[in-house]
Amino acid sequence: MQLHELELSALEQRIHAAQADYEAFRARGLKRDMTRGKPSVEQLDLAAAMLGPLESHVTASGEDARNYGGLQGLPEVRALVSGMLGAPPEQIAVGENSSLALMHDCIAWAMLHGVPGSARPWSRDIVAAEAGSADAPIFLCPSPGYDRHFALCEGFGIRMIPVPLTGDGPDMNVVEDLVKDPAVKGMWCVPRYANPSGETYAPRTIQRLAAMQTAAPDFRLFWDNAYAVHHLVADPEPLVDILPACAEAGNPDRAFVFASTSKITLAGAGLSFFAGSERNLQWYLTCAGRRTIGPDKLNQLRHLQFLRDEAGLRHHMDGHRAILAPKFAAVDEALRKRFDDLTVAHWTRPEGGYFISLDARPGTARRIVALAGELGIALTPAGATWPYGSDPKDSNLRLAPSFPPLEEVRSASEGIALCILLATLEAERDSRVNR
Amino acid sequence: MQLHELELSALEQRIHAAQADYEAFRARGLKRDMTRGKPSVEQLDLAAAMLGPLESHVTASGEDARNYGGLQGLPEVRALVSGMLGAPPEQIAVGENSSLALMHDCIAWAMLHGVPGSARPWSRDIVAAEAGSADAPIFLCPSPGYDRHFALCEGFGIRMIPVPLTGDGPDMNVVEDLVKDPAVKGMWCVPRYANPSGETYAPRTIQRLAAMQTAAPDFRLFWDNAYAVHHLVADPEPLVDILPACAEAGNPDRAFVFASTSKITLAGAGLSFFAGSERNLQWYLTCAGRRTIGPDKLNQLRHLQFLRDEAGLRHHMDGHRAILAPKFAAVDEALRKRFDDLTVAHWTRPEGGYFISLDARPGTARRIVALAGELGIALTPAGATWPYGSDPKDSNLRLAPSFPPLEEVRSASEGIALCILLATLEAERDSRVNR
Repeated sequence: MQLHELELSALEQRIHAAQADYEAFRARGLKRDMTRGKPSVEQLDLAAAMLGPLESHVTASGEDARNYGGLQGLPEVRALVSGMLGAPPEQIAVGENSSLALMHDCIAWAMLHGVPGSARPWSRDIVAAEAGSADAPIFLCPSPGYDRHFALCEGFGIRMIPVPLTGDGPDMNVVEDLVKDPAVKGMWCVPRYANPSGETYAPRTIQRLAAMQTAAPDFRLFWDNAYAVHHLVADPEPLVDILPACAEAGNPDRAFVFASTSKITLAGAGLSFFAGSERNLQWYLTCAGRRTIGPDKLNQLRHLQFLRDEAGLRHHMDGHRAILAPKFAAVDEALRKRFDDLTVAHWTRPEGGYFISLDARPGTARRIVALAGELGIALTPAGATWPYGSDPKDSNLRLAPSFPPLEEVRSASEGIALCILLATLEAERDSRVNR
Repeated sequence: MQLHELELSALEQRIHAAQADYEAFRARGLKRDMTRGKPSVEQLDLAAAMLGPLESHVTASGEDARNYGGLQGLPEVRALVSGMLGAPPEQIAVGENSSLALMHDCIAWAMLHGVPGSARPWSRDIVAAEAGSADAPIFLCPSPGYDRHFALCEGFGIRMIPVPLTGDGPDMNVVEDLVKDPAVKGMWCVPRYANPSGETYAPRTIQRLAAMQTAAPDFRLFWDNAYAVHHLVADPEPLVDILPACAEAGNPDRAFVFASTSKITLAGAGLSFFAGSERNLQWYLTCAGRRTIGPDKLNQLRHLQFLRDEAGLRHHMDGHRAILAPKFAAVDEALRKRFDDLTVAHWTRPEGGYFISLDARPGTARRIVALAGELGIALTPAGATWPYGSDPKDSNLRLAPSFPPLEEVRSASEGIALCILLATLEAERDSRVNR
């Protein structure tokens, strides 16, 4: 049933019932955290062997991994993640424990030096914009999206334009139109199990991103493949590799590819990766080579010792899936159960990644987060999934079920469903009163 | 004896003898690397236990170090290095494996955002300089100095002015005069066992650096205390801590302090540290917090487990000293032996650090490096210790005896001494011919 079909008296009745349930729930005094895509203790335990002894500190080529050097990362590690990144090992570089850091550095260097193809450093356009002689750089932001991407842009003074998502990735008609503006220098893309919508970019979307005409000659896709192998289903749909797609379309330098093992091995002690065309990789290594003599190669060896090869990596991810899939199912079940006879919200049933994206009645997201807070359930702040923290409809919620134990996910989801219901019913009543 | 006191015939005789020795040495076909301050295998082996199992992944406050978070680094690690950095734990942040990376990031953020006290981002001054309305930022560079510091400045477009060293640190009369220029935004300082001169800044030098009047309100000392605990003698002279000195002088925000465990535990897998005033630390954390969710805390725990406390750290450094001191002595001995009756060069006998700095006859450094290369001995390129790789006198050589085994250091030093002698004698002859 649709909400507007409810008689006012029935609506009032449901509000009373929901309020009673809400008070009863509050009395339970729970404390739950559904804010971030953080692996659970059980998931981290899957990589317990990584805390064991390192069998050898000698690399495949006979180097002592304890000493300085090895800026690009060990070739054997780059081979291990070659499939995941969709790039040959020689076009990959290994970083420290955070791919966000690599994205930060690429933008910082673009601002200060420009990227291959830039007429001048991007920060010069900000200066020119203040003088009225150019436009400040813009990034396209498929939204809802990842708050830390948006915080990077905001921190660097890069303007953001939200782009709608379609379920097959960003709306390419909109994107192709926007990139006609030479101020559009970049675009955030989480092509697989996007944060938080969960969608995977369709082959046609990727082909259009690779081939589209951009006015800026130094436009870059910031291709954050954070969930490349993070499936919740046994037979995931394939993802088209962006680097060959760009090369085939005649735009070989278009994409900077990022990934990490943060949600594969250990969230705080993984490896990060950059991949790009030979020209982009050379640029990356030149900039990175001023910053450091080389990354932590012992942690690279730890990863090799533990994951061994691509098959080992896939097998390890099966372990994550076994832990995560029931949690996602628990959220879905709690929502379906609470909204069994009334269409109150729309939410995703992702085949991978770390989030469920829920669109509530416009104008209720902040209220829902506040209500949940009263129940002891911490949610990602409403609006966080939009550039500048501002959801124009105040409707999107990002649910992150990975961290709490399954039973806690279940009870938290019941509480969240209740908050959504209550906020929605109250909003419906208010709208009738104000009509 | 001074060289000019030699009769021409005696000079020619010595050249013939040196040439014969040189050819004999070349026939040995050695291969030696004295280029960089790289720990030896023996030194790395001192930290072999760090490759063993991690006993616990739980921090002192009960956090799971495997997961995300902990941007500032574990308090117990910050306490461990508090003495080394001369800062309370709450004014320290822990980074990844490279303090150079922290210096890079601080300059990049200064360029893009400015530092506390900046009227505008430093990069704006470069733009203004091109328009003729301001001067581009300048760093003072005590020289000879660390080539990677200079490469950072060059990469970012920061101009460099060499400053003479006195044996007690930089010539403060020169420095105090130069900082009257508001374009002077920073200064590189390696206050303990400076790279490569080996000198430790005297208390009076540090006091003057802390108290001097700088025209730029956002001037920063980049205080790279890379060799804080890296003594070659049993009773090292103390170093005045820069942060309290700055605070006492009324310039609490003047210094950014850097250090690492790269030459304590493992060169490629150590920890790096930033320390500063509360205001500087807050600035650092704000910038770093956009870049990463947090550093690798497991490596921090590994360091704690291995070093335990300050006493453990000191004890560990005694092990390095036992390995390094004989190598430094071997270089000194080989040079003294070869130059027993002739003043051919001046070199340092440092009480710590990783380098011997040698001043050869002006105009011969490049020739010496080339001659050594012919003998199979790799030296740091002549000029590398100066801004822009340009030693105005072409006289400074940086000798790095840490990496090769003791016997190789000995033979390499004999070869180097020979090259210095030969180049010097030849230069003396040439100067007489051209007179």
